[in-house]
Amino acid sequence: MQIGIVGLGKMGYQLSLNLLDKKYDVVANDVNVEAMEKLSIDGGKTTATIEQLVQSLEKPRTVWMMVPAGDITESVFTSILAHLEEGDRIIDGGNAHYKDSIARSKRCEEKGIYFFDCGTSGGVDGARQGACVMVGGNEKVFKEIEPLFKDLTVENGYLYTGEVGSGHFLKMVHNGIEYGMMQSIAEGFDILEKSSFNYDYEKVAKVWNNGSVIRSWLMELTENAFSKDSKLDDIKGVMHSSGEGKWTVETALDLEMAAPVITLALLMRYRSQEDDTFTGKVVAALRNEFGGHAVEKK
Amino acid sequence: MQIGIVGLGKMGYQLSLNLLDKKYDVVANDVNVEAMEKLSIDGGKTTATIEQLVQSLEKPRTVWMMVPAGDITESVFTSILAHLEEGDRIIDGGNAHYKDSIARSKRCEEKGIYFFDCGTSGGVDGARQGACVMVGGNEKVFKEIEPLFKDLTVENGYLYTGEVGSGHFLKMVHNGIEYGMMQSIAEGFDILEKSSFNYDYEKVAKVWNNGSVIRSWLMELTENAFSKDSKLDDIKGVMHSSGEGKWTVETALDLEMAAPVITLALLMRYRSQEDDTFTGKVVAALRNEFGGHAVEKK
Repeated sequence: MQIGIVGLGKMGYQLSLNLLDKKYDVVANDVNVEAMEKLSIDGGKTTATIEQLVQSLEKPRTVWMMVPAGDITESVFTSILAHLEEGDRIIDGGNAHYKDSIARSKRCEEKGIYFFDCGTSGGVDGARQGACVMVGGNEKVFKEIEPLFKDLTVENGYLYTGEVGSGHFLKMVHNGIEYGMMQSIAEGFDILEKSSFNYDYEKVAKVWNNGSVIRSWLMELTENAFSKDSKLDDIKGVMHSSGEGKWTVETALDLEMAAPVITLALLMRYRSQEDDTFTGKVVAALRNEFGGHAVEKK
Repeated sequence: MQIGIVGLGKMGYQLSLNLLDKKYDVVANDVNVEAMEKLSIDGGKTTATIEQLVQSLEKPRTVWMMVPAGDITESVFTSILAHLEEGDRIIDGGNAHYKDSIARSKRCEEKGIYFFDCGTSGGVDGARQGACVMVGGNEKVFKEIEPLFKDLTVENGYLYTGEVGSGHFLKMVHNGIEYGMMQSIAEGFDILEKSSFNYDYEKVAKVWNNGSVIRSWLMELTENAFSKDSKLDDIKGVMHSSGEGKWTVETALDLEMAAPVITLALLMRYRSQEDDTFTGKVVAALRNEFGGHAVEKK
């Protein structure tokens, strides 16, 4: 099967290698010429433009977008859409907001093109060895391209989730859960670190990965991290985020429901991005005002 | 090897079967006569009293306690201790508070008895097939009884954690992490349930268990639960707890550190135990007082 891949970043590149292994005829495009040259060596075809990529595929075409959410997704999608024709399919494997995916699907419908929002999990390793994907879109056409998802994923690692939007929505919630799980694990190790006991965190993560209730892939990654740096001395505890946790919380707010753990996990990421806080200054100042409690001066 | 087991509840019974499989000479006692009769049929020896159990073991004796934390642990421990002699070992495999375990160890020391606080994870299935244990206590004597822990657990499923208290402390934190992970998973499914999409939760949990970042034993249990009852219609969302989450939060407070996700996971359990809340009444009344906002009448 022939497939177009737009985006040869960390995920797209590994997905391409994965598909090449499975004997797909991969035609790729990226603004990064080096990534394209590398893929050529690995056996993929590349094209200088998205237009050429589309034209080099047989109809009905299948183009997989794998680019960062936001403006890049929008501009890449617009370029691909401009060149596709009726009956073609476009798969967004990135982390777009599900509402944007629904809107993009409508633009595709006007041209008779099928849009699939495909949430992709499993990290870079998963993209290479076998990912986990959640796919929304037209069910009949999904069945036609189902072998693609089957080939890209681990056993039982793909799910048709229903109408367009449901794939990216499910991936968003997956990431929200991931935020909460990661923060839980992290708080636990923080309690160990501040306790009077003297644990070897790599060994702790390892024993927890063998037979315990909290065994998980995230705990395996925790074990890996501590095996490289036993107290994580080399890194700062600044936790960035790339949008899906925030969208999960915004969704919970829209649904007017309590999701305090996922919410707090997100807020703790924001807190970690500030060395000092204005909140802290205001509370310290107020304690000083009413009770004469000492403040720490700069 | 000969071992005494006191407590043939869900965990203790399965641990006994596990040890019988491994050709241990199991001598057990429980207040529940039926459980003892069942174990006799399964090949264990039983005794009518803890005193007889101790007397039937060769020195140095090893007695494993597996009873609920709190008063029962205290009274069973006291009975066992009364009959043990210098050089004997007592293992508390339950979920005692680590401070209580440190205190019990001191009482053992006075008689020259070795106390081990052994946090046991993996649930009933783990107890039967291979558990995960975290063990604090005297290192030299630990090495003498290490085969016992090795035999009871999955591969790499036991860890000597250091001084007495460190085993139960580590198990406590493990359970705190478990609270946060479970609440994260649950909030995610709650968002799915309230969304406009129509997911099959068993299939969602299944795909998340195959290649995704959040694959975990807890997600496997989620899959099992939804396979039995696709929307959990048959159960109420009342979340009980048995102490270790609360102790984890209390420990975080004692350490004056922020562990908001584990804390909120615990507080949401408490919230779930009330149909209505006085908090809700007070806020509703205040909104009515200042803004004339309608209240819902009983």
